Amino acid sequence: MASSNTLSPTQFLQQQLQEIVTLLEKQQLEKSLVERGPIINHDLVEAVLNKQQQNRLQEKFDLLHPADIAYILESLPLDQRQIAWDAIKIDDDGHVLLEVSDAVRQTLISSMEAEEIVNAAGKLNTDEIADLAADLPKRAMLKILRSLNNKERKHLNDILSYQENQVGSRMDLGMIVIQDDLNLKAVAAYIRKLGKLPKHTDKFFVVDQHGIVKGILPIHRLLTHLPVQSVADVMISDFVHFQAGQEIAEASRAFERYDLISAPVVDSDGRLQGRLCVDSIVDFIRDKTDEDMLAKVGVSEEEDLFSSVWKSAKNRWGWLLINIATAFVSTRIIGLFEDVILQLVALASLMPIIAATGGNTGNQTSILIIRSLALGQITPVNKRRLIKKELTLAALNGTLIGFLVGFLVWLLYRDLALAAVMAMAMFINLIVAVSVGLAIPLLRYKFGKDPAIGTSVMLTSITDSMGFFIFLGLASLFLIHRV
Amino acid sequence: MASSNTLSPTQFLQQQLQEIVTLLEKQQLEKSLVERGPIINHDLVEAVLNKQQQNRLQEKFDLLHPADIAYILESLPLDQRQIAWDAIKIDDDGHVLLEVSDAVRQTLISSMEAEEIVNAAGKLNTDEIADLAADLPKRAMLKILRSLNNKERKHLNDILSYQENQVGSRMDLGMIVIQDDLNLKAVAAYIRKLGKLPKHTDKFFVVDQHGIVKGILPIHRLLTHLPVQSVADVMISDFVHFQAGQEIAEASRAFERYDLISAPVVDSDGRLQGRLCVDSIVDFIRDKTDEDMLAKVGVSEEEDLFSSVWKSAKNRWGWLLINIATAFVSTRIIGLFEDVILQLVALASLMPIIAATGGNTGNQTSILIIRSLALGQITPVNKRRLIKKELTLAALNGTLIGFLVGFLVWLLYRDLALAAVMAMAMFINLIVAVSVGLAIPLLRYKFGKDPAIGTSVMLTSITDSMGFFIFLGLASLFLIHRV
Repeated sequence: MASSNTLSPTQFLQQQLQEIVTLLEKQQLEKSLVERGPIINHDLVEAVLNKQQQNRLQEKFDLLHPADIAYILESLPLDQRQIAWDAIKIDDDGHVLLEVSDAVRQTLISSMEAEEIVNAAGKLNTDEIADLAADLPKRAMLKILRSLNNKERKHLNDILSYQENQVGSRMDLGMIVIQDDLNLKAVAAYIRKLGKLPKHTDKFFVVDQHGIVKGILPIHRLLTHLPVQSVADVMISDFVHFQAGQEIAEASRAFERYDLISAPVVDSDGRLQGRLCVDSIVDFIRDKTDEDMLAKVGVSEEEDLFSSVWKSAKNRWGWLLINIATAFVSTRIIGLFEDVILQLVALASLMPIIAATGGNTGNQTSILIIRSLALGQITPVNKRRLIKKELTLAALNGTLIGFLVGFLVWLLYRDLALAAVMAMAMFINLIVAVSVGLAIPLLRYKFGKDPAIGTSVMLTSITDSMGFFIFLGLASLFLIHRV
Repeated sequence: MASSNTLSPTQFLQQQLQEIVTLLEKQQLEKSLVERGPIINHDLVEAVLNKQQQNRLQEKFDLLHPADIAYILESLPLDQRQIAWDAIKIDDDGHVLLEVSDAVRQTLISSMEAEEIVNAAGKLNTDEIADLAADLPKRAMLKILRSLNNKERKHLNDILSYQENQVGSRMDLGMIVIQDDLNLKAVAAYIRKLGKLPKHTDKFFVVDQHGIVKGILPIHRLLTHLPVQSVADVMISDFVHFQAGQEIAEASRAFERYDLISAPVVDSDGRLQGRLCVDSIVDFIRDKTDEDMLAKVGVSEEEDLFSSVWKSAKNRWGWLLINIATAFVSTRIIGLFEDVILQLVALASLMPIIAATGGNTGNQTSILIIRSLALGQITPVNKRRLIKKELTLAALNGTLIGFLVGFLVWLLYRDLALAAVMAMAMFINLIVAVSVGLAIPLLRYKFGKDPAIGTSVMLTSITDSMGFFIFLGLASLFLIHRV
């Protein structure tokens, strides 16, 4: 962790990375020197040198936070990453695995023996094991399950039974639970006996004898109220809590709205199941925005900066093929009008303007809708108003931009009829683009799909082909004098 | 705040919104009935009805958290929003203004008298006033400054002296500072006397007599250590802290890495200036991703869902015009080859495929680079490897996709030369697209600009025009038999 007064946390990290890369390169250099050199007992010398370097690496890693180690591993190419990973002491393995990205985690786990994985998992809580579970080989997972006691195994199964987008899958069990019939003195004594509080403990959860959550006791109330007061008197009984089956996206909005640090997770009867903490929420927000951003261009979130070229290439094909397929639709639509283009070749030159404005306008509308849907701001009450507003705006912009582009076309080609067709096509095109920009996310949302994923490519494909059809169709109606 | 066991936080909010809309619509209906009806003393009756409705609205708002009120105001059309805003009691005004989006805040503030604004600000801390400052009219701001005492005025000026992307602009002053020569008993007595801790107090900041931060004392250590122990013995002296002038993006990465709740902000001498809390970090991450997403299509983040059509239209012009301008470049490039297209009109049909694959490939590369830059994973050490990998990948995908598209073109037109030109164009186009996708974000970053903003539109404009040039240029070289 950053402790020097002069370096920022990132500078500190990059310095550590630089030092480790230097160590690794020295090791590789020495190895190649020994192999090429005149020494007879290669293997022995190499082993000694290796051991020295491993020790030096180990010393460096011992001083670093698991998150810092994760950053360094992610920034190392595959060969160096493997050497560094071997140098990290077993105790930290599990925590480092938790911190690295999914793609890098897979490269690390694939080099570990089942036994090593079980040892690494041994240092983790059940909720942490749950986070890793999807990436662990089946054999290792079975061994881990066998190493747990009954209660832990039940917890692990509980968490794993929830889907990735549900609160239950991100809850942890590191909460302090107290009975509502205690007084503060007893609570203080209990805490003192525990000796240590779980991370992010800003409040205790108060339950009755059936395990039903009755209230929360913020930790500072323990400091600011008299020891003789009872928990039931001091606790807050109007508090935010979540159902384990609820969507994590919704919980994250509540964390943002109410500035929460932790909150209880309950089952449908109100019984305490676990807690949700702000660090999981921050991870979720980051994961979701990264995923949305990468999905928009068809890069799987799992791409490792240094995965093999072949793996990366495959990762990006899906979207490229979809793009080519949709572009072929445009191609066939233009193909319908090839005789029109032959009579007025300027049409071919002007097509990119139609595609650009349609795509841009449609995306503006759809992104505003996607964001408002995510914020929960679109309700049956205001949806109609919103649609009306966007369509009015399309008509207004269509008129203005239509005139502007028509004028530019007239300047280029001095052809009034062509300019008029361009202006008309622009107007209709913007109305169509906004309609599609409204329809796709609203329909996807209605049918329970994530409106952020795939909207952009569908939209652009529709606005492109519709745009070409409108423009070339109008041209063939008004500009071409059939023989 | 959500307290019912059966409703999720969002369902609760939407229910509240629905009830308030019903109240507002009833009020508008009664008003129009009175105006059309046979009653002579319109004004009086209206005033009485109005008062009743206002009271009912006020009662509803009194029960809601400022963040909930903000959500409801954002979801209301302008006319209803104004009536609702008038019903919110003065005490809450300031906190609601803090919670609403920038665009909605402007609509609310524009309807307030300077005196009302000063009253609203009177309930806020100086760091909260700093958050509002940019949106307040000058006259109101001067009055607020006059109402502060010297210390508060200095704090406010300190915070306002930092830029929006610096840690100092988001720090708050709600921290508990203790001297390192106390013992825990004295600290506990001090806390008990305070009676209340600021939100998000998970630790106390320990300073020496010069105000230099020496360590942090997590609140739970107060509960788990003996009262006779001294602060200096129990505190943690290796802790994460930030410089006030540091970039907030960097601080947010450190919060994520180390799962922080709060951290001290210091000046260059290590003197305590304030603290940074996780809620500000969550807001920053959300703001930044929203801004990036909206900026990508040229919608200013400040667009209010219900702002006037005219205002929204203007908001979206900038980007549309840039798109049209860049599309005109493509237009002129295609224009250069109009005689080529006349000889082989299939070229016009095939252009969209070139544009689609180039844009998509370039965006895939640039988004990976932008993300890695944001994570601080691109260092001088690994940059060369990364560039080499992306270019190898472009050559691989260019070959494969080139063959595929060439084959499809052959199927469509049964013209082997045309198919070969298409495949060649695709190969060169992907290399160009990846080079541009690498160059733009890396250069923007090098020159201190945000690589996420504007990259996509620049990239698409270059890949489009270069793609057309390569495709049509190759066609004119190899396919056209000049007379």
